[in-house]
Amino acid sequence: MNTFGEHFSFTSFGESHGRAIGGVLDGVPAGIQIDMKLIRQELDRRAGRTLIDTDNDSALKKSKDNGISPRAMREADEVEWLSGVIDGMTLGTPIAFIIRNHDARSEDYDWLKNTYRIGHADRTYQEKYGIRDHRGGGRASARETASRVVAGALARQLLNAKGITIHAEVVQVGAETNPEKWDTYIAEVRANGDSIGGIVRCSITGVPMGIGEPIFDKLQSHLAFAMMSINGCKGFDYGSGFEHIEKTGSEMYLTDNQQLISGGIAGGISDGTPITFRCVFKPTASNRKTLEAVHEGEEGLKVGRHDACIALRAVPVVEAMAALTIIDWIENNQ
Amino acid sequence: MNTFGEHFSFTSFGESHGRAIGGVLDGVPAGIQIDMKLIRQELDRRAGRTLIDTDNDSALKKSKDNGISPRAMREADEVEWLSGVIDGMTLGTPIAFIIRNHDARSEDYDWLKNTYRIGHADRTYQEKYGIRDHRGGGRASARETASRVVAGALARQLLNAKGITIHAEVVQVGAETNPEKWDTYIAEVRANGDSIGGIVRCSITGVPMGIGEPIFDKLQSHLAFAMMSINGCKGFDYGSGFEHIEKTGSEMYLTDNQQLISGGIAGGISDGTPITFRCVFKPTASNRKTLEAVHEGEEGLKVGRHDACIALRAVPVVEAMAALTIIDWIENNQ
Amino acid sequence: MNTFGEHFSFTSFGESHGRAIGGVLDGVPAGIQIDMKLIRQELDRRAGRTLIDTDNDSALKKSKDNGISPRAMREADEVEWLSGVIDGMTLGTPIAFIIRNHDARSEDYDWLKNTYRIGHADRTYQEKYGIRDHRGGGRASARETASRVVAGALARQLLNAKGITIHAEVVQVGAETNPEKWDTYIAEVRANGDSIGGIVRCSITGVPMGIGEPIFDKLQSHLAFAMMSINGCKGFDYGSGFEHIEKTGSEMYLTDNQQLISGGIAGGISDGTPITFRCVFKPTASNRKTLEAVHEGEEGLKVGRHDACIALRAVPVVEAMAALTIIDWIENNQ
Amino acid sequence: MNTFGEHFSFTSFGESHGRAIGGVLDGVPAGIQIDMKLIRQELDRRAGRTLIDTDNDSALKKSKDNGISPRAMREADEVEWLSGVIDGMTLGTPIAFIIRNHDARSEDYDWLKNTYRIGHADRTYQEKYGIRDHRGGGRASARETASRVVAGALARQLLNAKGITIHAEVVQVGAETNPEKWDTYIAEVRANGDSIGGIVRCSITGVPMGIGEPIFDKLQSHLAFAMMSINGCKGFDYGSGFEHIEKTGSEMYLTDNQQLISGGIAGGISDGTPITFRCVFKPTASNRKTLEAVHEGEEGLKVGRHDACIALRAVPVVEAMAALTIIDWIENNQ
Repeated sequence: MNTFGEHFSFTSFGESHGRAIGGVLDGVPAGIQIDMKLIRQELDRRAGRTLIDTDNDSALKKSKDNGISPRAMREADEVEWLSGVIDGMTLGTPIAFIIRNHDARSEDYDWLKNTYRIGHADRTYQEKYGIRDHRGGGRASARETASRVVAGALARQLLNAKGITIHAEVVQVGAETNPEKWDTYIAEVRANGDSIGGIVRCSITGVPMGIGEPIFDKLQSHLAFAMMSINGCKGFDYGSGFEHIEKTGSEMYLTDNQQLISGGIAGGISDGTPITFRCVFKPTASNRKTLEAVHEGEEGLKVGRHDACIALRAVPVVEAMAALTIIDWIENNQ
Repeated sequence: MNTFGEHFSFTSFGESHGRAIGGVLDGVPAGIQIDMKLIRQELDRRAGRTLIDTDNDSALKKSKDNGISPRAMREADEVEWLSGVIDGMTLGTPIAFIIRNHDARSEDYDWLKNTYRIGHADRTYQEKYGIRDHRGGGRASARETASRVVAGALARQLLNAKGITIHAEVVQVGAETNPEKWDTYIAEVRANGDSIGGIVRCSITGVPMGIGEPIFDKLQSHLAFAMMSINGCKGFDYGSGFEHIEKTGSEMYLTDNQQLISGGIAGGISDGTPITFRCVFKPTASNRKTLEAVHEGEEGLKVGRHDACIALRAVPVVEAMAALTIIDWIENNQ
Repeated sequence: MNTFGEHFSFTSFGESHGRAIGGVLDGVPAGIQIDMKLIRQELDRRAGRTLIDTDNDSALKKSKDNGISPRAMREADEVEWLSGVIDGMTLGTPIAFIIRNHDARSEDYDWLKNTYRIGHADRTYQEKYGIRDHRGGGRASARETASRVVAGALARQLLNAKGITIHAEVVQVGAETNPEKWDTYIAEVRANGDSIGGIVRCSITGVPMGIGEPIFDKLQSHLAFAMMSINGCKGFDYGSGFEHIEKTGSEMYLTDNQQLISGGIAGGISDGTPITFRCVFKPTASNRKTLEAVHEGEEGLKVGRHDACIALRAVPVVEAMAALTIIDWIENNQ
Repeated sequence: MNTFGEHFSFTSFGESHGRAIGGVLDGVPAGIQIDMKLIRQELDRRAGRTLIDTDNDSALKKSKDNGISPRAMREADEVEWLSGVIDGMTLGTPIAFIIRNHDARSEDYDWLKNTYRIGHADRTYQEKYGIRDHRGGGRASARETASRVVAGALARQLLNAKGITIHAEVVQVGAETNPEKWDTYIAEVRANGDSIGGIVRCSITGVPMGIGEPIFDKLQSHLAFAMMSINGCKGFDYGSGFEHIEKTGSEMYLTDNQQLISGGIAGGISDGTPITFRCVFKPTASNRKTLEAVHEGEEGLKVGRHDACIALRAVPVVEAMAALTIIDWIENNQ
């Protein structure tokens, strides 16, 4: 239930305000010197500590003080490796790692004890488990994605060594597709105590032909499964997707760029060209405007500082889940 | 690899032009009198033999001779139950069923022996397996979905008995969202030897709160996995999805219909309201215009008669896969 | 639940007196010309139609009329290949096959409708499913093992091609370890309307070092799992096993044949030497003496003809399950 | 690969001389107050710190200084709960726990760097992974079973609450079945620098009828799988097993105690009576006599202090694995 992948499997654990979050990676080959710098860098990207990845991202650098939660800046995210690694080299045995949780001002969340926030999983958790860790969302918190990023970075290192690269970037913020304008737009949304959604596009190059199974275990099925598991993701498409709905078959197949149309997958199986897909992220419901309106007058209401556009910080998580999806096939085939 | 689901599991087998297609259902409770009429009806819907399901569909009735492949009309689709059933009642043991393949004019496909069709899986199959059944696509053929429909109908029968209903319908053909106009539009596309995509919306009502797991096995992840496995499906979204990308958080959460925004799922777990999602289907590449242009002059080229808009016939397959997804959770919880 | 193996997986279906028994093999590589003669031969061995395999077995040839159920002689066991195979060559897609059930005098079993036989699963089935196919045991019948033998023969063919061979033989009948005496012994037991247990030893040669996982998925765990699933098997050991319980460590490790002691496995992982294990089979409860004593006076009691020593016919099933166990690891590693 | 169970799943990690060993439990219901005292007690039993469990065991109390490794006495085995638990109560989320490794005199093992010990997994590990943690066996060390005992104790607590109890005890040491004599026997073996095997019998009471599946997932298959995964276990049987091989069917079914013969399982499914099985443990190869003979003259040879009869300490591990096996079915059925 908390495990992703079968051959290179990742088990995630930890509540956002418990002792630690972490994971166990099983199926990692022996003798790999882990690139600790890459893991550090990916965790920093997820936390919004640097935004250096792409041209689009660099346009967002200045928005740090506007669009990115300052809380993220304070998180240290130190990884402790408990097993499966000796002097930074993998042993072929399960790799357990943890990231301790530090004081995250959990008193901010005391008012939530008896409150179900709109657009959150508070109520479904309470019903399903009869108990919940009200502090900051527990498992539903985006903090859990830090463990995914650690696991994904290790997967990416292995993929890179095989010539497979993964790159994601924001391509749309709200209705705005011009990167030049996102900076101002997000600042306005934030100043207004509001939030906005966005679309992330991801491209995977170097995947050999033949990855994926023809019927249920299609490559696009596994990618969709992985992406839909990211907090706030409401949709997935690949190749022509929802974007080209107005085109006829002959327009698509005779006129358009075939790689864009196919998305690098035919009949559920990679065709050797770059694999391209998109994920849409909703505006977070944790914005001041919504929370104050819904919970008006509730005692103790404190609105934590939150991201104006979660799609920005989702980028490295999209990449991590793409890496975990692909490595599972690659390890299975070798 | 050819199995869907863990507790109510469905294993699919069979090539489109081999002896038979079929499946094995494991985990079906004992003592259920199978509704053979329902299975018959769903197979007929998939084959386009009747189009009586919804208001939108009824608008399409007249298009039968235009939009729906007449080939489908000839398929008998008789189900033979090999095991797990005695006098139509389930024994709790695995249920194997087959549908024999009849003469499907496989000589139509002889020219394909050495040809890779554009927009098809011919080449990836050949590369992956080093061998392929060139006749009509083998496993990649939409014929395989008939087995899914049988399995899905049985799942649906069990779900109905628990008050869970599933309904899908076409909501868009190409860019056209007005059902009144689809009839004419599809007729034109067909007359032009072309094809067009479409969007299917599905709604599942009566699912109790609590179905789905918080991290990887989110309900939306499993639904996306299931839908993306349907031939021609290029995208999936639920709730606000790609549709409401231009809206801010406060617009969504303070103004809009919350069920439409959430899609009936919070934090990966069903919230007890109707679950709604969409799938987008591409225009088939098997249209006359494309095939003739790409394979111009190739000896023996015969273009089989194909659907102008595969989204129409995808409707019962979407329902079947939704049923198989939900029953797997329900059987696991009881 | 009815599936064995993950990478080369076998799903079994069918009741002993339903339309057919059969199976689906998934994960079989493409391009293999199936050795139909080998499959025929293994089915014949299971049915007791020939007993030509080993020196020990040959001693049993004459006992055919004594120890082996004549019913077995009449079973045709024709295999029909439904999918995944074209002209006897595998396509890489799931291989479904069936063996039709013929008239097996099911009226013999009418008296069982309301009877639970001692030493059988009649009562647990009835309780678990609330329904059972009383005719000849349904799924619990040893007839189901014919499907395993078909699957195992295909697995064995692939293993043979990699230099891996599997050989099982009876090494003990009751307390008797001298093969010369089994013939007479079994004849006496049979004449007495009784039954007797036995021990089968199996040896697998050519398995490369490195098969098996160190903790839970030890090779011996998977072999034990497979063998204990065979009808009538009550125990499993490998290497020193239960046999050498009286020896001290120094006697074992300094004096004995190390391969016999280790059984070819160290720390859960094959060490490259022959893998040897044993299975013990109980006397069947379906012997005349027991049935008449327990069900004395019950209306309609008919005692079908049964094997005096089921260990004899278990030999090819042990080999089949060994083949399915090993091929699953081998396919996973290549 | 390092995970046991599907519905109540346990993932084990950690090397014997790395930072920590531990595990992740997934599928544990929410709202359970963990019995920390029970976990403490089971860890102590495994470490040989107390031997108070059974009449047979009590006969062994005095042998502590003879048969039980004094090293075990020094291990603190403090469990740290990292996630899934708040104030000792389960949250329904994955429970991660660790036990830190303390100084275990790893210099004792330096001579092993280039040595493969007889009867150990040193060589297969080196071949499989190309790297190994030579200090004390790494993952192959019995230390890993401490994590199993923690997981098993939690499973046992849940089973107890449902009226299911598990009890294992040694029934044979070498060829000796009289408990009165084990004390002296083991002392002699130990004084001689040698080791001896033993048989553990386990009984599970209170399991409802209906646990287990008829074909491959028989209850005995799962129990055998679990037991064979314990270090040093070379065989498993249940009910009549290997013990009653000399008896005919009529002797067994008409004369003997039926529960002893069936072992509480019919057709792969629990029949509601106590489930009884046995495991045989080999003499450890880590005895002074063997090591000195095999590695005579090797530089730096130090023979750590080891158990003379590992079957004694295997008792709580057998119980833990039995608990993990049964809880997986019970959680699946509720």
